[in-house]
Amino acid sequence: MLHRSLLLLYLAVITSSEILFLAVDLPLKGKRSPPNAIWPHPQEIQISNDLLYIRPGHIMISSDMEPCDIIAKAIQRYQPVFFPPKLTMHQPPADTSNILRSLTLNVLDNPQCEQYIQYNSNETCNPRFQHRGVLLDSSRHFLPVPLIKKNLDVMAYNKLNVFHWHFVDNQSFPFESRTFPNLSRQGAFSSDHVYTPEDVTSIIEHARLLGIRVIPEIDTPGHTYSWGKSMPELITVCWANGKPYQAIYGQHGEMEIFNPIEPRVYSTMDALLREVKSIFPSNYIHLGNIESIVSNFVRRSNPNISRWMTDNKINSTRDLHSYYANRILDIMRNISAIPIVWQDVWDEKVELPPGTIVQIWKGTSDDDISDEWAPYLNEIAGQGYNVILSSPWYINYINYGHYRTNTTIVNLEFFKYYEVEPLRDFSGSDDAKIRILGGEACLWGEFVDGTNLLARLWPKTAAVAERLWSAASVNNSKDAQFRLDVHRCRLLRRGIPAQPILNGYCGNYELSMPNAMINDPAFNYDISPATDLITTTIKSNSATSYLFDAISSMITSIFASLLLLMNITLATISFKY
Amino acid sequence: MLHRSLLLLYLAVITSSEILFLAVDLPLKGKRSPPNAIWPHPQEIQISNDLLYIRPGHIMISSDMEPCDIIAKAIQRYQPVFFPPKLTMHQPPADTSNILRSLTLNVLDNPQCEQYIQYNSNETCNPRFQHRGVLLDSSRHFLPVPLIKKNLDVMAYNKLNVFHWHFVDNQSFPFESRTFPNLSRQGAFSSDHVYTPEDVTSIIEHARLLGIRVIPEIDTPGHTYSWGKSMPELITVCWANGKPYQAIYGQHGEMEIFNPIEPRVYSTMDALLREVKSIFPSNYIHLGNIESIVSNFVRRSNPNISRWMTDNKINSTRDLHSYYANRILDIMRNISAIPIVWQDVWDEKVELPPGTIVQIWKGTSDDDISDEWAPYLNEIAGQGYNVILSSPWYINYINYGHYRTNTTIVNLEFFKYYEVEPLRDFSGSDDAKIRILGGEACLWGEFVDGTNLLARLWPKTAAVAERLWSAASVNNSKDAQFRLDVHRCRLLRRGIPAQPILNGYCGNYELSMPNAMINDPAFNYDISPATDLITTTIKSNSATSYLFDAISSMITSIFASLLLLMNITLATISFKY
Repeated sequence: MLHRSLLLLYLAVITSSEILFLAVDLPLKGKRSPPNAIWPHPQEIQISNDLLYIRPGHIMISSDMEPCDIIAKAIQRYQPVFFPPKLTMHQPPADTSNILRSLTLNVLDNPQCEQYIQYNSNETCNPRFQHRGVLLDSSRHFLPVPLIKKNLDVMAYNKLNVFHWHFVDNQSFPFESRTFPNLSRQGAFSSDHVYTPEDVTSIIEHARLLGIRVIPEIDTPGHTYSWGKSMPELITVCWANGKPYQAIYGQHGEMEIFNPIEPRVYSTMDALLREVKSIFPSNYIHLGNIESIVSNFVRRSNPNISRWMTDNKINSTRDLHSYYANRILDIMRNISAIPIVWQDVWDEKVELPPGTIVQIWKGTSDDDISDEWAPYLNEIAGQGYNVILSSPWYINYINYGHYRTNTTIVNLEFFKYYEVEPLRDFSGSDDAKIRILGGEACLWGEFVDGTNLLARLWPKTAAVAERLWSAASVNNSKDAQFRLDVHRCRLLRRGIPAQPILNGYCGNYELSMPNAMINDPAFNYDISPATDLITTTIKSNSATSYLFDAISSMITSIFASLLLLMNITLATISFKY
Repeated sequence: MLHRSLLLLYLAVITSSEILFLAVDLPLKGKRSPPNAIWPHPQEIQISNDLLYIRPGHIMISSDMEPCDIIAKAIQRYQPVFFPPKLTMHQPPADTSNILRSLTLNVLDNPQCEQYIQYNSNETCNPRFQHRGVLLDSSRHFLPVPLIKKNLDVMAYNKLNVFHWHFVDNQSFPFESRTFPNLSRQGAFSSDHVYTPEDVTSIIEHARLLGIRVIPEIDTPGHTYSWGKSMPELITVCWANGKPYQAIYGQHGEMEIFNPIEPRVYSTMDALLREVKSIFPSNYIHLGNIESIVSNFVRRSNPNISRWMTDNKINSTRDLHSYYANRILDIMRNISAIPIVWQDVWDEKVELPPGTIVQIWKGTSDDDISDEWAPYLNEIAGQGYNVILSSPWYINYINYGHYRTNTTIVNLEFFKYYEVEPLRDFSGSDDAKIRILGGEACLWGEFVDGTNLLARLWPKTAAVAERLWSAASVNNSKDAQFRLDVHRCRLLRRGIPAQPILNGYCGNYELSMPNAMINDPAFNYDISPATDLITTTIKSNSATSYLFDAISSMITSIFASLLLLMNITLATISFKY
């Protein structure tokens, strides 16, 4: 029996080579990574040179805090990661004594088995930022439930802990409300393109077990065309050239913005936000409020609204937006929900309640990699609001090759996400700095659906994950590209179609190869329930054993989950061999 | 019995809605397409308003030219397209008489059942360009055989008829040569990342049945690092600062270019090209010769080569390149193969044999959509060479939204491929114009493998396909985007993960949805042989029947295949109901 205090050890076993081979005419700078390199990089790491073997069916993993479903299920979940289905494993030498037989997660200070992670949960493993999110947009294209669950898994593999679910917008209203069932009945693309209450609950539960909070976004007052299909009374008609119902190319549709002078808007929002709050355990609800300039344009163009504004001494569209925002914020106060808003609301100087989170999305664009978002961080945090940063991490902004250089091809998209440093130009007080909660990678759905969601997000979003999780000093992008490529092979082994970021290969588990894991039930939620997952064949093989990351991943992941899910101040992992 | 002379008729039956819903704040210009809109647009089309139903098991498709395996297999192949597995079909009314019961492909003039399509095959259906290709790169990342076959299917759906297989390069040598087995044994990424002779033969046969020629590219004298793993004697060592074996960042690796003064280079090429010619029925072999400027740099840096050049009165690297090219062209002449070369060879004024095809790749870049390639077309065709154009169709150059406008998001990548017009600035003679054989969409493999190949190619490459197949007058891109989106839904129904190009949805066969076809054996070649494909459930359903494209697709596709595969001067399709 041996105790080690932390965190990583090299353990042995499976073969699945991931040697990289580079564009030869353009040799890459940077240091190659060993095949068990970790992503994202831990805050603290101790590496032992001891080589340990594991054998399927001969290793016990347990925790000293039981019963606790989160831990029990985490251990179970890591079985196929530990012993990947289909992959050939090398058998340890017959006479070896260095076989790992048990592994116990020792949770100190006897904490409670927390039911749902919230912001105030004590993340004592001290990740760099507490809000590490991914935004998915299920309105412009529908994202099926199995895909969302699979993506939550990948988020967990990358220590991301917030799923920001932008689930309604102009294009469709897929959220099935019990209070207003017609919203999705008429606003969804079709009856197949709907999230039922059961779907929503199962996604929240899936996320909970992974230590991920789900924050729903009910985006108003703009982007509400799909609401109007069943509730046209909520929407203001756009006028142009003295005529109503005018859609203007490049500006707006004929009916896509809430009518802020319509009382039913507020009664509907009150009921709907109450329902959402009752479904989502998160204390937070995202209120959207993006691109309200468009909204303003439309409101102005409607003569009824202009008249109402004059009558009510509201002198500007900005004041009108404040009027709307304040009424929604009142509802939020009544239902004890804390708001998150896009920065537009702050731009328009709406006074926000304490605790509000402002999400920054301006200050960059698809071909702009400058840090023009930095002043927003300074100002918003300086004014006492909490902040999350998204501007530099719009993952939907795809491009090829170029990055701060004229050399094409080898300089990758990866760098532009990885080399962001949120606090590089931060000049505020320490108090203000604490209010910078973290960031989110956003994948807007204009051109994204099941065909490309996972490949587009991964491994690029892993770059964001490391920035938000690891120490600021972990920032050598030239080395990191190799380590991330190792991580991408790891994701392939877990059935995720993560794109290549370098030339080269992983193993015969690449997509469309015999051992591809993409459809393996161990890593999917659509086809059939995951049963009998761990039927690993062990073949004797004289080839050199490769170090494998399964255990190290599991340890860091379980450890991270523990720390995220419970009020733990310290933990050790003990193991026997 | 009724005869119709040509080409399209509206036939009924299956439900699979593909209504589009657009970004509301930015209404799109252009005309929506009906759900059976055709892509690429035929040269000639007659539409009848008759509505016909089809019933699985109650329709006979036959040809008057039998036996002919290509036709028989085409008919068989279209069964699952006709009656998509899993999809719900609407039953015709009980009392209907308009049910299509048979369909005969009448081949006129009694042509031979051609075994392999070549350039001189008579494409009398008169497509606009005879060379409509896709380049895949299986060296930077390995592309598994099932994926290549699936991609060939999609090419056929889009009337593309040339698979340009760039299968060796610096990064790996996956082609298993019987003459030089060590080339792949040591030059492939691993023994799993190899195309065996059987693999190659099965790909060629798969393509043949689709009317697609496979043109292999053996790219020399640059990009040959992977050859050096087993045959270092072929490669010149790069020198820098007076030292050998120098890799220089941004320029070249330490050993990646053939040594043009080494006799074994030519004996190896002779044997290898002979082998390739014996395997590939195509009369053409692509010789590469891309980026020879890099090659020149390296050759110059090697003092042995400089000395040899002086001794042999070869005064410039250009002359040295000519020396190399001419020796290879001699080999080609001896084995009766016609060369295709990248334009670099022409740039360097190497004299090329009659019939040579020069492939243009310069004159554009990932963020450049100008037509700077146009003068090359003029000059090269004017000098009597055949030409194919690739510059504007590098599909690997991905980017988001922008296109000749400041409005983001709705202006799609699609436009930049679609709005290319090869002959827009062509000012040569009619004779020269005939030498412009067509074009190729190129997907270089730096960041592409099984995870993203199909989604990256499709439906963008379909834009190229229409440009090369349809009349020049079919060029309204604003309308075409809607028609292409209909086509993308069609591709999804055939198991292809084609990306969205507009907001919206297809049906419940989208990826990760219950009826997703991506893993259906009818459209795959990896998992198990495709048997028992057509077990379609017909459900009675009171919803409106949608017009469906299956038959129209089949007719145009079979028709196209017939015309491509055989010397047919006219054909009719007769059908009974």
